[in-house]
Amino acid sequence: MTKEIIIAIDFMGGDDDASFILPGLRIAYEKHPEARFKLFGDENLIRSKIKYFPELEKVSDINHCETFVRMDEKPSSSIKRGRGTSSIWKAIDSVKKGDSNIMISAGNTGALMAMATLILKTISKIQRPAIAAIWPTINGETIVLDVGATIGFNTKQLIDFSILGASMAQSVFDLDQPTISLLNIGEEEIKGLDEIKKAHEILKSDNYFFKYKGFVEGDQIGKGVSDVIVMDGFTGNVALKTAEGTASQISTYFKDAINRSFMAKIGYKLAKSAFETLKEKMNPSRLNGGVFLGLNGIVIKSHGKTDPMGFSSAIDLGIDMHESSLLLKIQRNIELLDKEINFDKISN
Amino acid sequence: MTKEIIIAIDFMGGDDDASFILPGLRIAYEKHPEARFKLFGDENLIRSKIKYFPELEKVSDINHCETFVRMDEKPSSSIKRGRGTSSIWKAIDSVKKGDSNIMISAGNTGALMAMATLILKTISKIQRPAIAAIWPTINGETIVLDVGATIGFNTKQLIDFSILGASMAQSVFDLDQPTISLLNIGEEEIKGLDEIKKAHEILKSDNYFFKYKGFVEGDQIGKGVSDVIVMDGFTGNVALKTAEGTASQISTYFKDAINRSFMAKIGYKLAKSAFETLKEKMNPSRLNGGVFLGLNGIVIKSHGKTDPMGFSSAIDLGIDMHESSLLLKIQRNIELLDKEINFDKISN
Repeated sequence: MTKEIIIAIDFMGGDDDASFILPGLRIAYEKHPEARFKLFGDENLIRSKIKYFPELEKVSDINHCETFVRMDEKPSSSIKRGRGTSSIWKAIDSVKKGDSNIMISAGNTGALMAMATLILKTISKIQRPAIAAIWPTINGETIVLDVGATIGFNTKQLIDFSILGASMAQSVFDLDQPTISLLNIGEEEIKGLDEIKKAHEILKSDNYFFKYKGFVEGDQIGKGVSDVIVMDGFTGNVALKTAEGTASQISTYFKDAINRSFMAKIGYKLAKSAFETLKEKMNPSRLNGGVFLGLNGIVIKSHGKTDPMGFSSAIDLGIDMHESSLLLKIQRNIELLDKEINFDKISN
Repeated sequence: MTKEIIIAIDFMGGDDDASFILPGLRIAYEKHPEARFKLFGDENLIRSKIKYFPELEKVSDINHCETFVRMDEKPSSSIKRGRGTSSIWKAIDSVKKGDSNIMISAGNTGALMAMATLILKTISKIQRPAIAAIWPTINGETIVLDVGATIGFNTKQLIDFSILGASMAQSVFDLDQPTISLLNIGEEEIKGLDEIKKAHEILKSDNYFFKYKGFVEGDQIGKGVSDVIVMDGFTGNVALKTAEGTASQISTYFKDAINRSFMAKIGYKLAKSAFETLKEKMNPSRLNGGVFLGLNGIVIKSHGKTDPMGFSSAIDLGIDMHESSLLLKIQRNIELLDKEINFDKISN
């Protein structure tokens, strides 16, 4: 019998009443019959909804929480109000206590990151956690980090992110030696911010458990040039959102073009199956889920505006991380790298 | 008779021998019969090519230059080698001397910016120049700056960029009071880098010659929420290139989808005119041209990999700037704003 995987769910996070959560769990459960759910939130609310999902009722337990974090609440206020009592806090805490294997929330990202860092703590020798996203490329997928955990950065953090991202690539893409690039604004060594240039010097000086390929620019992320692309959280967040915005803009153009004439509509109908594939490739819920990396526990942030399929793919991602022993990989890789470079002595 | 507009062209800049330059000038000349061209570069080369464009020969003069800047040359080396002698230098210098109204190059951006700053100098009270791009949106166009002139930034520069961008919006979009936004990684006031938050406080404190609308995130650039969106050069360059990369990625998906089946090909043929419109909207040469803002002269950077239509639209942009008296607008707006806020005293 496959070992159970226990998933802590923040039931109170997400836009529009998070009505995607239970349908999402049903999809995830069909795919992963070994999944068990711990639902954290208002008990009455959960009971009133889960009764329509009897198959989930059997494999879930309900953990009542007195408070919950609002989507627009500041991290500092959420901790003041929600420490020990909120659905986010208690769900993360169940990972800390070993009662759950992974934690998933579609709630307030800042509060989730603040609480996760406070409860789980960063892995030894890692300065600050990062959020990693999976970015679709023309030949597959690339891990991009940090996409918004940390504002402001130094060289040591870029090295940390390289270790974390490459470890995740070993887990998700099942690779021995993933390739890594640093995002910069020129491929030449002369351009860019000093912190990035210093990280480049350290990364290119040797072959580590990953293979460093140098600088890439923004237009190369989607070309799949590396398994992992590393950048600071501000830049990564702008890049990710700009790419999402561009995709949605082109999708608007596309719909306008189709609706412009009768012939275009007929043409679209004939080519429909081809366009369905295109639509699927551009579907943001296919790759939903930001992975919090660098903490002593697996926490996944689902998009707040996702759908059941999207929420279930965030769960897929978490299960994948757990089953591939991501945390052990990260710890082993840090030890490995620590022997090769003066990991603690990297100047900022 | 319309007054002549004299355009200084760096003949030696651009990828693939810059074979788009003369065909591009022909398109521009058909549209702007008042245009006159000063071509800077190797005289023999120019003569061997321009003889196939007799209509251009009549309205162009050739200015021989002994050196030219290579596409991959560092700015410092290009200045050492090309000061006073290179095609970029001499073309900018003709703007400085008043012999030309605008200067256009498809060459090395770093060298072009370094030489332009050295020769033309920044406008009084502007710390550093910016590169502005015109970004297509679902309801029109937005000016985005800085897209790569400056690495590293402070609050004063973001205010400068706001003045420069809003002045350009007055020129290009013919608006009295353009709207502007600051790019950040959260719409809330709590997030983001300190320099950006300080600029936000200054901009929101009053109504200036522009209307400040607050923060936007990367996914809103393409929604056309403001006439101008301001950001630092590193972030702007990443955002612009990521958007370009995403558009080209989706275009690859699209071609793959069409070629997958016979039915899809037939469908595409029926819907062809609709897709041509889509293709036109996504055509990067339609909005080619980075405008150097903040200098005492108009310099336009064309993409190095453009086509004749793209090169001619960079010229269009330059002519537009000149005819709408952009430089006077900028100076007047700086004076206006200087009365309203302690412009020199903004802390970094």
